[in-house]
Amino acid sequence: MNTLIYSVRSLVLAFLFISFSGLTNAQKRAKVSEVMAYYCAPCGSACDLERHNAPGLCKHCGMTLVKRSVVLMDSIRGKQKTSQKRNVAIFIHNGVEVLDFSGPSEVFASTEGFNVYTVSLTKEPIISQGFIKIVPNYSLTDCPKPDIVVLPGGQTGPFLENKPLINWIKASAERAEIMLSVCTGAGLLARAGLLDGKQATTFHNYIDALQKATPNAKILRNTRFVDNGQIITTAGVSAGIDGALHVVAKLKGIDVATQTARYMEYDKWKPNEGLVVEPAGKSSATRN
Amino acid sequence: MNTLIYSVRSLVLAFLFISFSGLTNAQKRAKVSEVMAYYCAPCGSACDLERHNAPGLCKHCGMTLVKRSVVLMDSIRGKQKTSQKRNVAIFIHNGVEVLDFSGPSEVFASTEGFNVYTVSLTKEPIISQGFIKIVPNYSLTDCPKPDIVVLPGGQTGPFLENKPLINWIKASAERAEIMLSVCTGAGLLARAGLLDGKQATTFHNYIDALQKATPNAKILRNTRFVDNGQIITTAGVSAGIDGALHVVAKLKGIDVATQTARYMEYDKWKPNEGLVVEPAGKSSATRN
Repeated sequence: MNTLIYSVRSLVLAFLFISFSGLTNAQKRAKVSEVMAYYCAPCGSACDLERHNAPGLCKHCGMTLVKRSVVLMDSIRGKQKTSQKRNVAIFIHNGVEVLDFSGPSEVFASTEGFNVYTVSLTKEPIISQGFIKIVPNYSLTDCPKPDIVVLPGGQTGPFLENKPLINWIKASAERAEIMLSVCTGAGLLARAGLLDGKQATTFHNYIDALQKATPNAKILRNTRFVDNGQIITTAGVSAGIDGALHVVAKLKGIDVATQTARYMEYDKWKPNEGLVVEPAGKSSATRN
Repeated sequence: MNTLIYSVRSLVLAFLFISFSGLTNAQKRAKVSEVMAYYCAPCGSACDLERHNAPGLCKHCGMTLVKRSVVLMDSIRGKQKTSQKRNVAIFIHNGVEVLDFSGPSEVFASTEGFNVYTVSLTKEPIISQGFIKIVPNYSLTDCPKPDIVVLPGGQTGPFLENKPLINWIKASAERAEIMLSVCTGAGLLARAGLLDGKQATTFHNYIDALQKATPNAKILRNTRFVDNGQIITTAGVSAGIDGALHVVAKLKGIDVATQTARYMEYDKWKPNEGLVVEPAGKSSATRN
């Protein structure tokens, strides 16, 4: 990658040299400040693409910062971002409702750009729906850091007091883009304090219990999903499919999500069939 | 059960004696022939409830047939039928599409009266959708005889030439009430010769291939499911949910199926969104 960066950089610099030859000195200085910035000399880490406005040392790897083309580096960053797959951790446990976890599994695994895996308390097999015996890919202790966490429901009660799990959920939420609960999985988000001050939904028979468990949240009925930005909750069982498609639309665009829905022959998907809670200051949320 | 049969029989006979006392002798003879028949003396086997029009020996257990009330025996048969759970075998294999098998799994396992289990070629773990590792409950050789067989799709190609599997499908079809395929699982039904002379559907991208594989069937596009009676095929992936709900409605009534759909919050279910192929002589099939 380093060789590529330097080769393309040489071409861009040559291009810039030719382009700027017709400008005044003042114009040239302004253009240069817009198109050049300081970057860490390539060391193969994420800091390679971090932009700085002044020369100095990289605070991550200690290497001397060098002047580079912003256009080029932004282009490399964009390409890296789109080529990197997002990690999707599907948390499974004894008594997990089969469609709760398999709906989002189908959606993310059928869409380009997601690396989907199961994670459980340990790597011991779990039983879903009373008969589906699944060996988890990872335990909480060796699970790759997820960008998206899916918390399905079912018999979640015994896991609400599981400290390693709740701590894992809290730690994951600190860096994940999306925390998506399905059905009674919302109870786990509540237990991790992630629904405080937010709106949410859950399985129709669990709404009162969830409201009681998380009094600082507003739990909604008859809502397919509620999107608070990072924290997204869905209604019961089959609603996880819609919630996951919403996440795909949010991260990769409506066209990609529609393509996945078509592949799944889930023509019944209604893209706006949920509540998107907009940041303060913005107006009406979509809701059907 | 034997004691119960005889106690209730005594009551019914007493009732019949009182009821018939006001009839002529001819009327009585006619009524008796309608309400009495010959049955195997109770031996605890299915032949206990088999009806015979003449005295003799039971061809199954060899016991002497005795005269009994048809009303009573039909009532016992009805109660036994509704109290017995139907065995639902979900066939899983490497590359099985996760929603293909988990949709019907959710439907049948969430409904009273079904004993659902997974079956595979062997009991070795299989991988679904590239990451879900499942240990099958049964292999083809020790699987309980199913009343309903679910054949999901996905990467079914390698299994079309698997003789033990195709033979198991053929043998299961000889006694099962329902053979339900989802998505490309229809290819397995075709390979077992079960689509000959029937209408069917499958995953949108597999329609031409399936038509070629089973020229004596008529493969339909844009059809959520096709019900030929015992043989039911559904369209792709998520259509398996609808197909399974249709089976529940067919076997246990629309109210039970609606209750399951509500539990799953699958409000999007449209009960008649498929083609029901009626027996010759009957008219219009439902189709949306």
